[in-house]
Amino acid sequence: MTIAGDVRATIDGLRAQLVVLHAELPRNNLVVWTAGNVSARVPGRDLLVIKSSGVSYDELDAEAMVVTDLDGNLVEGSRSPSSDTAAHAYVYRNMPEVGGVVHTHSTYACAWSAIGLPVPCVLTMMADEFGGEIPVGPFALIGDDSIGRGIVETLQHSRSRAVIMKNHGPFTIGRNATEAVKAAVMCEEVCRAVFLARQLGDPLPIAQQHIDSLFHRYQNVYGQG
Amino acid sequence: MTIAGDVRATIDGLRAQLVVLHAELPRNNLVVWTAGNVSARVPGRDLLVIKSSGVSYDELDAEAMVVTDLDGNLVEGSRSPSSDTAAHAYVYRNMPEVGGVVHTHSTYACAWSAIGLPVPCVLTMMADEFGGEIPVGPFALIGDDSIGRGIVETLQHSRSRAVIMKNHGPFTIGRNATEAVKAAVMCEEVCRAVFLARQLGDPLPIAQQHIDSLFHRYQNVYGQG
Amino acid sequence: MTIAGDVRATIDGLRAQLVVLHAELPRNNLVVWTAGNVSARVPGRDLLVIKSSGVSYDELDAEAMVVTDLDGNLVEGSRSPSSDTAAHAYVYRNMPEVGGVVHTHSTYACAWSAIGLPVPCVLTMMADEFGGEIPVGPFALIGDDSIGRGIVETLQHSRSRAVIMKNHGPFTIGRNATEAVKAAVMCEEVCRAVFLARQLGDPLPIAQQHIDSLFHRYQNVYGQG
Amino acid sequence: MTIAGDVRATIDGLRAQLVVLHAELPRNNLVVWTAGNVSARVPGRDLLVIKSSGVSYDELDAEAMVVTDLDGNLVEGSRSPSSDTAAHAYVYRNMPEVGGVVHTHSTYACAWSAIGLPVPCVLTMMADEFGGEIPVGPFALIGDDSIGRGIVETLQHSRSRAVIMKNHGPFTIGRNATEAVKAAVMCEEVCRAVFLARQLGDPLPIAQQHIDSLFHRYQNVYGQG
Repeated sequence: MTIAGDVRATIDGLRAQLVVLHAELPRNNLVVWTAGNVSARVPGRDLLVIKSSGVSYDELDAEAMVVTDLDGNLVEGSRSPSSDTAAHAYVYRNMPEVGGVVHTHSTYACAWSAIGLPVPCVLTMMADEFGGEIPVGPFALIGDDSIGRGIVETLQHSRSRAVIMKNHGPFTIGRNATEAVKAAVMCEEVCRAVFLARQLGDPLPIAQQHIDSLFHRYQNVYGQG
Repeated sequence: MTIAGDVRATIDGLRAQLVVLHAELPRNNLVVWTAGNVSARVPGRDLLVIKSSGVSYDELDAEAMVVTDLDGNLVEGSRSPSSDTAAHAYVYRNMPEVGGVVHTHSTYACAWSAIGLPVPCVLTMMADEFGGEIPVGPFALIGDDSIGRGIVETLQHSRSRAVIMKNHGPFTIGRNATEAVKAAVMCEEVCRAVFLARQLGDPLPIAQQHIDSLFHRYQNVYGQG
Repeated sequence: MTIAGDVRATIDGLRAQLVVLHAELPRNNLVVWTAGNVSARVPGRDLLVIKSSGVSYDELDAEAMVVTDLDGNLVEGSRSPSSDTAAHAYVYRNMPEVGGVVHTHSTYACAWSAIGLPVPCVLTMMADEFGGEIPVGPFALIGDDSIGRGIVETLQHSRSRAVIMKNHGPFTIGRNATEAVKAAVMCEEVCRAVFLARQLGDPLPIAQQHIDSLFHRYQNVYGQG
Repeated sequence: MTIAGDVRATIDGLRAQLVVLHAELPRNNLVVWTAGNVSARVPGRDLLVIKSSGVSYDELDAEAMVVTDLDGNLVEGSRSPSSDTAAHAYVYRNMPEVGGVVHTHSTYACAWSAIGLPVPCVLTMMADEFGGEIPVGPFALIGDDSIGRGIVETLQHSRSRAVIMKNHGPFTIGRNATEAVKAAVMCEEVCRAVFLARQLGDPLPIAQQHIDSLFHRYQNVYGQG
């Protein structure tokens, strides 16, 4: 398979964008060493762009981003794609509205993953961003579609852009890669704040109609029109 | 409404100051992504200067600061003001001694907010800065005067420059914006230290007359004359 | 009182050294805003050099360091000395072997201060540096010799270079200011590690003869001859 | 003993590499002040390269790295080798497959060391990197072969590249120094995440066959072929 001329510029642009977005992961303390990856769907094509496997965050450049089809087969690039590519690809195949996916092993989300409980919605910023609790996905092994299926089945029953896979860590989605990175940052932040709240006492729930109101407003009013 | 020539320089100065002060929020780990905002009253005018909504901390400049009246209506600037402007404006309308307001979702303050308990005064630095416990304000939804009213009603019965709004996060005030930012930094720091103390055991209270003595001295003696 | 010519160079050197050492406090996350101070005794003179009060860590320079006598009276410099100068001065008057003193409100040490318990010696690095537990000093108000006396009386019965003053925070000492800063860094580090250990379970004590052996070796063998 | 010409370049290369790798320790928050050290075996020779004792991380250069034989005797360099050299040397003498060793006092690993419990394998990244729990080694005093023997005896019964020595801290190994540094980074990260999980509740174990599967895959498939 060769890249048609008319998507050349799009892919080059996504590569450049992913270099910048990957740098947000260590900057926001979401990853150590080479862990974590961000991908973007190539709009209108059955292709995605993702980090190659085991690359240092000091060596991130456009060359470190590779193109695969939506079965995870390498289409362009000289390096092996991230070992999590199958999970990203499954999400793109099954959630057409998703344009970006992020996976990290951010520490507080991993702590919640190890006990297998959803993060309750007890802060307005959580209602704003996630529209409710952050759900837990099933335990799944790497190597086939298990992780991707677990992500999709969990997120399809939730407004949340984040799912915490049991004993593993968070995956986040967005209409584009920037939104997915924002969700990864906010996911770790609320995992941390709610962790701390639980150490202090019993967090106060927010009533469902207030969660709905906050989520609706934030998704439609916040930011620059 | 147009900005009269004689407040032009004042507003330009406040814009420049707010760029510097907003940079203190990520530097002191009080915010992630675009959360948080600092405002300043325009002295002698029914105007305030505040960050526009959803701006990245990498893109902070004087243009990102907008001017509104004390009902939160945009007076100068091409962007939408912070979605928290109504709360800031309410404080300025009702607390004439206040010249600066800060709102963050700093993590430890949010943890206290989720359990809805005031932070007890168990450290001398807390007595110095806040003159006692940091009080909790009511749960309030964004969109009208509820948050502003909750802030004002809580702070009017306290010496504290910080209030932690339930399930939401901290607001701090000062005679000017710098004081309000300092209060935001100190609020998170004492929320963190007292959180940790509570994990270790039962924090020892400081006697009221000692709190009074520390607060009086710090407000009147500390710093350069 | 004027500074004799023969101590001019010594004082200028100490000022420069204190600029560098103060920068270690924010770098090691021991302070926020303007909190914290380092002082050095002027060898052979009844003088000390210390940070002036309420100075930002961004504005540290030799001018921000002032000289006082050992009663805390300003001898040289145009700014008010740190509000903690009386405590530093008391230590120098009463512990002739001390050449440097540091005070911070580092967070984990403050947490221990709020419950008023010594930090037990359960790590070899703690035996190395402190020769046993870090003791707790009495609650004392600022404004007279109470804090200084509490520091001295506590440290005179301990091998530790750190004392945690109740409801307040740590003071550390050293033969010179660098040693005192190192003790401040290590104090916060062990306060944090032992805090965490207590959350996990019951920390295992180290036998007294092993503590003695580690302390003796570290004080005499470690580093470059 | 003199360095034969044919290992000159090898040793110079290892020195340069160790400068870079030591910088990873403070960057990943594994050390404070002068604590921590990385060593590398000189391939095919009974020699190792290691940091000298008590050197500041601001002053790391090739000169700060010294060469010793596998009994810890200085062979090349003008400074005293790290006080932990005997432990490193013991590992190289007894584990011929090891090419790099790291020792830190990273905070969360120290917390686990103080309670003397192994870190249970409850996260897939832990199965990937360590193949199971991180074991605890015995309490041992510095000064003879006790620490080295404790490390070797513990690691010989484990797939883990990390051991947490009781009341002391972690040692990690690798086929080369880079692998040992990676293991030190991952050790602290999983000590932190599992600490947090235990505060939230009872971490869910991962079944042994899943741990085996994850470990096998990560050791053989991850990264660039």
